[in-house]
Amino acid sequence: GESRPLSGVIGDEDAIRQLPMEAIAGVEKVIPILKPFKLVSRDFKPKDTVVRVRDVEIGGGSFAVMAGPCSVEDREMLIDIAENVKRMGARILRGGAFKPRTSPYSFQGLGEEGLKYLAEAREKTGMPVITELMDPRDSELVERYTDIIQIGTRNMANFTLLKEVGSMKKPVMLKRGLMSTVKEFLMSAEYIASEGNLNIILCERGIRTFEDSTRNTLDISAVPVIKALTHLPIIVDPSHASGRRDLIGPLSRAATVVGADGLMVEVHINPELAKSDGQQSLTYAQFGEVMDSVRELLPLAGKKM
Amino acid sequence: GESRPLSGVIGDEDAIRQLPMEAIAGVEKVIPILKPFKLVSRDFKPKDTVVRVRDVEIGGGSFAVMAGPCSVEDREMLIDIAENVKRMGARILRGGAFKPRTSPYSFQGLGEEGLKYLAEAREKTGMPVITELMDPRDSELVERYTDIIQIGTRNMANFTLLKEVGSMKKPVMLKRGLMSTVKEFLMSAEYIASEGNLNIILCERGIRTFEDSTRNTLDISAVPVIKALTHLPIIVDPSHASGRRDLIGPLSRAATVVGADGLMVEVHINPELAKSDGQQSLTYAQFGEVMDSVRELLPLAGKKM
Amino acid sequence: GESRPLSGVIGDEDAIRQLPMEAIAGVEKVIPILKPFKLVSRDFKPKDTVVRVRDVEIGGGSFAVMAGPCSVEDREMLIDIAENVKRMGARILRGGAFKPRTSPYSFQGLGEEGLKYLAEAREKTGMPVITELMDPRDSELVERYTDIIQIGTRNMANFTLLKEVGSMKKPVMLKRGLMSTVKEFLMSAEYIASEGNLNIILCERGIRTFEDSTRNTLDISAVPVIKALTHLPIIVDPSHASGRRDLIGPLSRAATVVGADGLMVEVHINPELAKSDGQQSLTYAQFGEVMDSVRELLPLAGKKM
Amino acid sequence: GESRPLSGVIGDEDAIRQLPMEAIAGVEKVIPILKPFKLVSRDFKPKDTVVRVRDVEIGGGSFAVMAGPCSVEDREMLIDIAENVKRMGARILRGGAFKPRTSPYSFQGLGEEGLKYLAEAREKTGMPVITELMDPRDSELVERYTDIIQIGTRNMANFTLLKEVGSMKKPVMLKRGLMSTVKEFLMSAEYIASEGNLNIILCERGIRTFEDSTRNTLDISAVPVIKALTHLPIIVDPSHASGRRDLIGPLSRAATVVGADGLMVEVHINPELAKSDGQQSLTYAQFGEVMDSVRELLPLAGKKM
Repeated sequence: GESRPLSGVIGDEDAIRQLPMEAIAGVEKVIPILKPFKLVSRDFKPKDTVVRVRDVEIGGGSFAVMAGPCSVEDREMLIDIAENVKRMGARILRGGAFKPRTSPYSFQGLGEEGLKYLAEAREKTGMPVITELMDPRDSELVERYTDIIQIGTRNMANFTLLKEVGSMKKPVMLKRGLMSTVKEFLMSAEYIASEGNLNIILCERGIRTFEDSTRNTLDISAVPVIKALTHLPIIVDPSHASGRRDLIGPLSRAATVVGADGLMVEVHINPELAKSDGQQSLTYAQFGEVMDSVRELLPLAGKKM
Repeated sequence: GESRPLSGVIGDEDAIRQLPMEAIAGVEKVIPILKPFKLVSRDFKPKDTVVRVRDVEIGGGSFAVMAGPCSVEDREMLIDIAENVKRMGARILRGGAFKPRTSPYSFQGLGEEGLKYLAEAREKTGMPVITELMDPRDSELVERYTDIIQIGTRNMANFTLLKEVGSMKKPVMLKRGLMSTVKEFLMSAEYIASEGNLNIILCERGIRTFEDSTRNTLDISAVPVIKALTHLPIIVDPSHASGRRDLIGPLSRAATVVGADGLMVEVHINPELAKSDGQQSLTYAQFGEVMDSVRELLPLAGKKM
Repeated sequence: GESRPLSGVIGDEDAIRQLPMEAIAGVEKVIPILKPFKLVSRDFKPKDTVVRVRDVEIGGGSFAVMAGPCSVEDREMLIDIAENVKRMGARILRGGAFKPRTSPYSFQGLGEEGLKYLAEAREKTGMPVITELMDPRDSELVERYTDIIQIGTRNMANFTLLKEVGSMKKPVMLKRGLMSTVKEFLMSAEYIASEGNLNIILCERGIRTFEDSTRNTLDISAVPVIKALTHLPIIVDPSHASGRRDLIGPLSRAATVVGADGLMVEVHINPELAKSDGQQSLTYAQFGEVMDSVRELLPLAGKKM
Repeated sequence: GESRPLSGVIGDEDAIRQLPMEAIAGVEKVIPILKPFKLVSRDFKPKDTVVRVRDVEIGGGSFAVMAGPCSVEDREMLIDIAENVKRMGARILRGGAFKPRTSPYSFQGLGEEGLKYLAEAREKTGMPVITELMDPRDSELVERYTDIIQIGTRNMANFTLLKEVGSMKKPVMLKRGLMSTVKEFLMSAEYIASEGNLNIILCERGIRTFEDSTRNTLDISAVPVIKALTHLPIIVDPSHASGRRDLIGPLSRAATVVGADGLMVEVHINPELAKSDGQQSLTYAQFGEVMDSVRELLPLAGKKM
């Protein structure tokens, strides 16, 4: 399939089966694609997809670290965090303006005000930003401010939202659902791709198991499993996977050597006072150490930052 | 708390803590409500909530069966199914017009056309109808046609959608997420309630486990656990829980005797030809047998249909 | 398979494949038995196995309740419990003399002294007794005192112990491993059967999941699933499945109506003082209520006690 | 606790509580040890335990690879595998003589014959050997031939066997149960330690989850979590964790950088013909590549082989 032009036909399987496809001029053979995901499959496109965001590349040998606070809480604080994570090697700034919280009474994010602070931090530092979209009615608003649109773990199977970002122009980072198999994860990426947006970054962030010494269980095997199945880049979020500051370093190193294309790490100016996820956020010094240890592993992983 | 008037104050916990509540006239004492769910908690309202939909009651001793096809596929077929399930004792007609499907290439439902067929089936049979809402932008459309709005298992933690149905006037049926704890389930109900809509029916529909002889594992214990924690009615969906036609009968009986307030069962005129979930749909005859066996257990469960 | 004599050949699959079986006189046809369990399979023996222990029958329409303390702690107490559970309808006395405890520093059971108390309680009440075997070197000792040998959940895949009880003469009750699929459960029963002992009672006692409002998650669907696959009787242990006294009643009723052949329930003279599992043990009065509610469901389940 | 002599008192908690310990001369203070594991806890012994087997060290900076076939099938084959894995850097030879198999009709191992071949392979290569003990009655036999006694995943909570190896003189490798929490894993190690044997190597080998693209899910986070809790060395078995040959390399590298003290890898002269676990066994060439990639990471992990 690599050396000759290939066209994929997508659509309702039953409908396709009824079409006289092989009778169309130029169609040599109709091969049923058995894997349920098609456009995102490595069978369909063997070469690694490289997602480009301003001057940053993710995938195909380029490793990128996204860092920042869980939620955007305050203008000065965000800019301080942005400048510091950049100094230590992060290439993309993360920060939530719309926060999915289990309780309706918890802090839900600053909304558009938070988006504005992210844009301001980008201006000051030159770093592209990533933030979560939760409501399809906010898509224009979020796209106006952000460089990468994040779909959170709880919305991995929110097909309405997947179709919405599939028709947007900006790259999408799709987090694995904490209750989702690798196959379901790739089917959700296929939803986005089927609407035309192929600039997709996958993110492994831990699955729910019976083990309770970590918040979730990082499925480190999923990284090589997924890289064999798809051409899309995949990064690892050790902060949400473990929920424990002391594990961010070891898990970041593990992600690097199994072939991940990047990391997403929560960093805060003062983790003790963070409005959300403080117990898993790193201080600047801790983040610096993690970056150093990852940096020395990258050549052995055949990647560059 | 049962014998004196009680007011619940809801909102951001940190903000509340800073208010001089006990200084307000008439406030006797501020008792922190430790359970993270408040409005839906039985501590807050000890008496069972009864949800009324046209002439049907769910909860508080009234047991109601919702039945119908997985997805609305065809006008005549839907009306035939509606008439037959009504004849056997179902009180509410189910049917999906918008279908959440793992693959973007699978049948996604008839949309508004399907809603119209549901409305027509209601006119012909007098049965209220329930159908799923997936996109907050469809809320007016769906509310116009349906009697109960269903939030599906994949959207249990789609907080945008929960807030949307929380501000609607019609009753909501919230399905448990397939990897959500009981606590998270009740927190999602709290999201709906916190927007003002307290007409909520919960639905246990199986959780994801390692066992693979059934599609999911019905968490039958969740019914009495949840009834102890909340005043809201809870029904059981044995079709999605098991994914196996032969288990609908036994699981429906189990649900009845553990205290469920109703059932949701998939029935099809011809399960072999159903566009979705055929392997778990009952024929009319099979549904009739299930209803008979449930009917004879109801007096022992202190319920009436 | 039901109307003609059938012989099952068991042994290493690869070895069997190399035998010229169809050349043997009287062998009409060799049908590979695809299910990995053979002797315990309903294909091999369609009719329900009835396990008989003294004057008690389990299976084939006979429903039996096993009740008693988690561990045998004291002679007088055991006899008092035995007399009381018998009075309320239990047919078999349970009690652990060898206790598998997560901590080596917890009470490990009275050993042979406990077995003697069990035998004495049997003499006084006429009830057969069941107790757990943990060490194959204790098999003669345990067999001397007990009527049914219990294999606990942690030993479901202890193949050494399974083979040991397979060569014993007394009936065996095999508890499902909390991490085991239905298929693995039946394979463990097959281990016992393959050594010659077909008097096996299965026991569903909950599986490990992410849900934490109950100790384990009772897999109620497993009862009808297993009854379709095997001729062996299966009972349900709601005490270990839930770990909560308030759920024993609802779960016992659920077990009864899905087709279980009996129950195993922990009852204690004073649950607050029990050396193990106090929080899930019933008082006499509570056990009486559970028995009453189960008794009225039995005719509807086609069973008699 | 590090700078003054410390005595741990172990035994039944309730009994200890009743002793007038502080009245004994020389006892300064009785501090209740809250963690349920004591002897294996890092609080009790902060310094890493180094397990020594002939000339091989595991733990405390020494990294050791155990390699060999799943089961000992044949004398010549075993010696060939031993010589080859040694040449590539393995320090310990693995091979099962007693095999726990889900089906009683599958190959169960060669028994004592297999133990003899292992001893012969040790003589020829100088490598210490590790093999599984399944039956406490075989303990003398197995101890006579092996250097390290393995307790398999299915027997992690077989307390009879744990006590048996706890009273033996040779080092024990304890594999994590596939649905056991970290706490339960350490409690099982405590069972061994409480009988006097502190030469324990832990082994993370994957846990059971809903994900089905790998046989089990390697819980890579468990390595740093466990190293923080205990002084015992811990190794990783990527073969059983993944069940997939293509993942052994990435997972071995991940284990190395998160702090594991070694690996256990299945290698076979001809994986396609292996009597068990062929699909996860490496060829010599593949094992050589894994060793090379691990070797270059060791200095960065502060370990030496």
